[in-house]
Amino acid sequence: MTIAGDLGRDSDERIRLGMVGGGQGAFIGAVHRIAARLDDHYVLQAGALSSDPDRALASAAELGLDRSRSYGDFQAMARRERRLKEGIEVVSIVTPNHMHFPVARAFLRAGIHVICDKPLVHKSSEARQLQKLAAEKDLIFAVTYNYSGYPLIRQAREMVRSGALGEIRVVQAEYPQDWLSEKLEDTGQKQAAWRTDPARSGAGGCVGDIGTHAYHLACFVSGLELDELCADLTRFVPGRALDDNAQVLLRFRGGARGMLWASQVAPGNENALSLRVYGSKGGLEWRQEDPNYLHYTPLGEPPRRITRGGGGSDAVAGRLTRLPPGHPAGYLEGFANIYGEVAAAIRARREGRTAEPDVDFPTIDDGARGVAFIEAAVRSSARGAKWIKV
Amino acid sequence: MTIAGDLGRDSDERIRLGMVGGGQGAFIGAVHRIAARLDDHYVLQAGALSSDPDRALASAAELGLDRSRSYGDFQAMARRERRLKEGIEVVSIVTPNHMHFPVARAFLRAGIHVICDKPLVHKSSEARQLQKLAAEKDLIFAVTYNYSGYPLIRQAREMVRSGALGEIRVVQAEYPQDWLSEKLEDTGQKQAAWRTDPARSGAGGCVGDIGTHAYHLACFVSGLELDELCADLTRFVPGRALDDNAQVLLRFRGGARGMLWASQVAPGNENALSLRVYGSKGGLEWRQEDPNYLHYTPLGEPPRRITRGGGGSDAVAGRLTRLPPGHPAGYLEGFANIYGEVAAAIRARREGRTAEPDVDFPTIDDGARGVAFIEAAVRSSARGAKWIKV
Amino acid sequence: MTIAGDLGRDSDERIRLGMVGGGQGAFIGAVHRIAARLDDHYVLQAGALSSDPDRALASAAELGLDRSRSYGDFQAMARRERRLKEGIEVVSIVTPNHMHFPVARAFLRAGIHVICDKPLVHKSSEARQLQKLAAEKDLIFAVTYNYSGYPLIRQAREMVRSGALGEIRVVQAEYPQDWLSEKLEDTGQKQAAWRTDPARSGAGGCVGDIGTHAYHLACFVSGLELDELCADLTRFVPGRALDDNAQVLLRFRGGARGMLWASQVAPGNENALSLRVYGSKGGLEWRQEDPNYLHYTPLGEPPRRITRGGGGSDAVAGRLTRLPPGHPAGYLEGFANIYGEVAAAIRARREGRTAEPDVDFPTIDDGARGVAFIEAAVRSSARGAKWIKV
Amino acid sequence: MTIAGDLGRDSDERIRLGMVGGGQGAFIGAVHRIAARLDDHYVLQAGALSSDPDRALASAAELGLDRSRSYGDFQAMARRERRLKEGIEVVSIVTPNHMHFPVARAFLRAGIHVICDKPLVHKSSEARQLQKLAAEKDLIFAVTYNYSGYPLIRQAREMVRSGALGEIRVVQAEYPQDWLSEKLEDTGQKQAAWRTDPARSGAGGCVGDIGTHAYHLACFVSGLELDELCADLTRFVPGRALDDNAQVLLRFRGGARGMLWASQVAPGNENALSLRVYGSKGGLEWRQEDPNYLHYTPLGEPPRRITRGGGGSDAVAGRLTRLPPGHPAGYLEGFANIYGEVAAAIRARREGRTAEPDVDFPTIDDGARGVAFIEAAVRSSARGAKWIKV
Repeated sequence: MTIAGDLGRDSDERIRLGMVGGGQGAFIGAVHRIAARLDDHYVLQAGALSSDPDRALASAAELGLDRSRSYGDFQAMARRERRLKEGIEVVSIVTPNHMHFPVARAFLRAGIHVICDKPLVHKSSEARQLQKLAAEKDLIFAVTYNYSGYPLIRQAREMVRSGALGEIRVVQAEYPQDWLSEKLEDTGQKQAAWRTDPARSGAGGCVGDIGTHAYHLACFVSGLELDELCADLTRFVPGRALDDNAQVLLRFRGGARGMLWASQVAPGNENALSLRVYGSKGGLEWRQEDPNYLHYTPLGEPPRRITRGGGGSDAVAGRLTRLPPGHPAGYLEGFANIYGEVAAAIRARREGRTAEPDVDFPTIDDGARGVAFIEAAVRSSARGAKWIKV
Repeated sequence: MTIAGDLGRDSDERIRLGMVGGGQGAFIGAVHRIAARLDDHYVLQAGALSSDPDRALASAAELGLDRSRSYGDFQAMARRERRLKEGIEVVSIVTPNHMHFPVARAFLRAGIHVICDKPLVHKSSEARQLQKLAAEKDLIFAVTYNYSGYPLIRQAREMVRSGALGEIRVVQAEYPQDWLSEKLEDTGQKQAAWRTDPARSGAGGCVGDIGTHAYHLACFVSGLELDELCADLTRFVPGRALDDNAQVLLRFRGGARGMLWASQVAPGNENALSLRVYGSKGGLEWRQEDPNYLHYTPLGEPPRRITRGGGGSDAVAGRLTRLPPGHPAGYLEGFANIYGEVAAAIRARREGRTAEPDVDFPTIDDGARGVAFIEAAVRSSARGAKWIKV
Repeated sequence: MTIAGDLGRDSDERIRLGMVGGGQGAFIGAVHRIAARLDDHYVLQAGALSSDPDRALASAAELGLDRSRSYGDFQAMARRERRLKEGIEVVSIVTPNHMHFPVARAFLRAGIHVICDKPLVHKSSEARQLQKLAAEKDLIFAVTYNYSGYPLIRQAREMVRSGALGEIRVVQAEYPQDWLSEKLEDTGQKQAAWRTDPARSGAGGCVGDIGTHAYHLACFVSGLELDELCADLTRFVPGRALDDNAQVLLRFRGGARGMLWASQVAPGNENALSLRVYGSKGGLEWRQEDPNYLHYTPLGEPPRRITRGGGGSDAVAGRLTRLPPGHPAGYLEGFANIYGEVAAAIRARREGRTAEPDVDFPTIDDGARGVAFIEAAVRSSARGAKWIKV
Repeated sequence: MTIAGDLGRDSDERIRLGMVGGGQGAFIGAVHRIAARLDDHYVLQAGALSSDPDRALASAAELGLDRSRSYGDFQAMARRERRLKEGIEVVSIVTPNHMHFPVARAFLRAGIHVICDKPLVHKSSEARQLQKLAAEKDLIFAVTYNYSGYPLIRQAREMVRSGALGEIRVVQAEYPQDWLSEKLEDTGQKQAAWRTDPARSGAGGCVGDIGTHAYHLACFVSGLELDELCADLTRFVPGRALDDNAQVLLRFRGGARGMLWASQVAPGNENALSLRVYGSKGGLEWRQEDPNYLHYTPLGEPPRRITRGGGGSDAVAGRLTRLPPGHPAGYLEGFANIYGEVAAAIRARREGRTAEPDVDFPTIDDGARGVAFIEAAVRSSARGAKWIKV
């Protein structure tokens, strides 16, 4: 099955999509829309695009939504879409974090599949509620740990699974940025404002906003499960309400060790998520800012630079690849791959296929693990950076 | 005006697009479709997707085209679309090179704007015919020298224009690949077959397929015009009908010098287009495979790595930027930027705006210059690599 | 004062050097000799080159030492050299770690300056004894934390000092290698044997062998002092007697935070010492394997690649620079810079100069801090990776 | 036989070395001295270090030469050293280019081996005279095309020889610098003054100073012989007497093609010599500024980064390697390798060994080929960049 690309789809197969959040001025909403559109798997039909009703309407008009399906609030949207004969099949939730829970709950109750941004919710208790609800309703629930959509991340995971690295010993995950090196939240910058506000962002600042991405990627690729962690969260910018730097030691079940560093105060780092995995037989390195390269080092041999689509790239990566090698793909394509896999899963449901398609998108279980990670990190740090079981 | 992004557009503004070529098994057609779709500026409504009528129909069905607007040949398509009240406004021509001329001519005659892949046509005489026709009909004619759509290429051009590099002295352009290192055309590989066939590709092989991209980029960024060239074209793979390696010395008007190397037999190079420009006050380097970086070296100072969207990137690049720095964009976005600029130009025509919008896509004139370059290179080489005026 | 280079020295100024350890089959002894010879500041005149008397003699012969000054043991050497009219002025100690203490003590007692490899000794109590002795005798005691001899490391330090980075917040130090990924000590490889043997190496394995380098560099450049640490040391290779992977959280006085990772089981890493320092106004990155580049990122501006000797490199680096920019220097030159600075200090003593020359080599105090770091890391890890004050 | 390193040599084996040129203020003389000293193969005993007698004496004193062997001119030196019982065995000639010929001739006539900087002489006729003389006298004559001394360049050559790249098709050699982007020769800078002066530098400026290095390296590694060239030499800086930019097309015997670019006006390039070689089965890339890496790409496989001393490096490189992988070596070590190989050759002569040792340093024949290359390039360019047989 091909996820990426624009052929291989009948027009009536397009999936009916709704969106909550993502109105004018938002960043991630626009990304989700491009991701949905890139391979033509979806058609956006309904939205509650802003908590400000005027902005919601204006945004919907710009996007060409039918006026009747532009909603002032998500509750109305969930209620009405459920009753429409051709209502949305899936909703994308792209609000600030604190709204993820009520919105996701409303749409699950309405029997609508969910694609939700990360981190899933503020508390593990909320995550469990959503997990239960999704299971009862038998609904698809994806969480956009989008970096797992990069083709070479999939190949990295496959290489670990296949034993190419031997037994995994060390996992080094990093996610430094620099955009919060100064007190940007005081300038009215919207992104900075909600991401540093505990009420909207949750108890984790940097660790929740980006640390959770690094954590997901580390587990996704290595196949390891975290056993305990020791986290030192710091607020470097005076007056900031949440951590802007997170340094974490990780102990995985089975004995592997890891380090995770996330920072939003590291000048010169834009979005420098990276992952290194070392086993008894080899190592892997991948950097998000140069995502078309995977560096593979079999022990004792020269490092090999595997390129997306090039010699050495595998079928797992190939399924998510639109372009020949040397034609760089990036963030949007990785994101679109998650949407493509969700589309494949939704189509399988539509058609009553019993076998699940061969997809690998992050689910509500990944989302719940992310919440548990953030909770543990915050708790560990509050106790002076003690070891905490997760 | 913002070119990139998915807001700022009423739904009825979407531009009606047709396509010739690009059916099942094609590469570049799918790229054009994603480029058109990415920012939601276009809706694909009609096509003559293959010279094989069955494949044309099957391809159209997969893409969800209305059956009535799936054509078995481009002539019929041009005739009928011109008469439709809501026929296509613009056609994308993504056939092998030898079809560019008749197809473009047919649609220009039908009063339909054209987006055509490169190289424009086989001969300068054909290019001149199309130039004349487009001028008479006052139609937009874009040629997808897509690499000029990368934001940092636009910034590079702007930096040269602004004098940041001083007087330009040296331009080094390269475009090595390796996919034709063996006789792939004998294996039935479709891309290799037509690209090494003079009847379909024209008199230039490598120099026409990719050399022309490097040439366009060199002129686009440096602002220089070629005066004369000395080209040594080689066929390294035994039995190949066209050059697979091109080495060219360039003399620009005003005294600047350049070298251009294009190759399809350089193992380890996937799509390694690069450009270096050196002036009396500084230098620039850009590599297509890592397109989110522009290396700028003011004389006597440390090199600076400008990133798309980051500190040091300018407004010209910003207009074509969808994502924050560190979120890599690639080939598709660069291609989509050309489509976005063409969309802005078409909308200006629709609205009868007299002033042209601030767009900078490659036009039929760039296409004609590309044809002249190929002709000169082939002629120079045939004479033993003598200097030829262009 | 110029440290590097081969002019500016009268022949009779050459410093009389002795060596303990470093006979046939040793690695670091040869490095010390080249470092001493590179700028012609020293002449090697005496040695106890091996604990095996035959090997000591054979090694001395190969090196062209006068037979009368080739010693079977270091005690005899210290005794006799002290009494010679033109005995050695300084001794280089390049034995396995466990011999550093008795050898250094013997030569200090003999009134001879010392250059000692790292880590200084096994225990802080020993370090204190040597510190006391060196102070009483007013002798120079250098510890070859050789990486601090790289010109751009000096520049990095100077940039931090000058405030270019603002207040330092985060320090990330790494030193991964891969050469002990398998149980090399069982194969008879001499280097692996003593470095994994607690009796000869001390209580720290990887953390002592290379972690201490990363720690020194972090403090040297940042100017910070460690307050407490939390260290998780692991033995991944079954049956290994000492840690082969060390992951450490650092808290510096004043509030800065750091992470330190040292590993000898990370395939693909040869000698990948690196340092990143982030402050409120900018960041720095340096990698030992590419030591001629220093990456500097003023907040909000594009990263600059400072090259040794190039535009942007400073006088501090210049003093230690032999070659123009673009002519790569490496490990040996960095090591030679330490020897050059020690030579300058010895000459100042010779000439009775009261003012110390402008040198900055690592001393016994750095050595003692390194021992304290290793002790604290081992203790922290033994307690389950608890925080430990240093 | 081991070339590099400091063991394996009896003290009385040290070779007696003299030097002409290289006094105070010179650059390359100091490099030669360090290269000679690094592995302790030589002892500098005599010199005519400057054409200015006072500076010659002062320089000799600084270097610790015996006063009786510090000469005011090279003629006197050659005459006297030949008659000394323990006179020098080999002379290093490190003067500006125009002095190479008379000095080399004088020492050859005196029966003394020669190490001469490049380019060898101004004219092919002079080169032939020296070749004849060296042959008659059976003397060693090395020309310091020092970049051929890098271990990985030797490995590259060996890989080509072994057939790992298949049949060589394309060779791309570059040597850009930027230090002459402005009219530095007008400021009194000594290096710039003689290098841009035809009387001292010869008919080639940039092409002779650095183009000849790139040319030598291209032939050395590829094993190809040049058949004809087409050179466009330019003077970009107004008023400069010699070319500061050279762009050359190369045709090798057997059909391979190449390009060579040398420039001293390319801002951002310090000493960016690089070589790329492509064959039917694979490619190689090496960059002088990062000399510890050799990039090897077998066709269809991921690129491999071979490191000096690391997995994938071979015995040929190993013979010239002092340090473990990850411990960077650079320019001085590469230079020292040439000196080490000359030392091995001289010792073989001393000992009357009939078989030549396994050394591979550039000889007078390489020097003569370099002169022919410069002459051909200058001639081609003077005729408007016509093809010229060499």
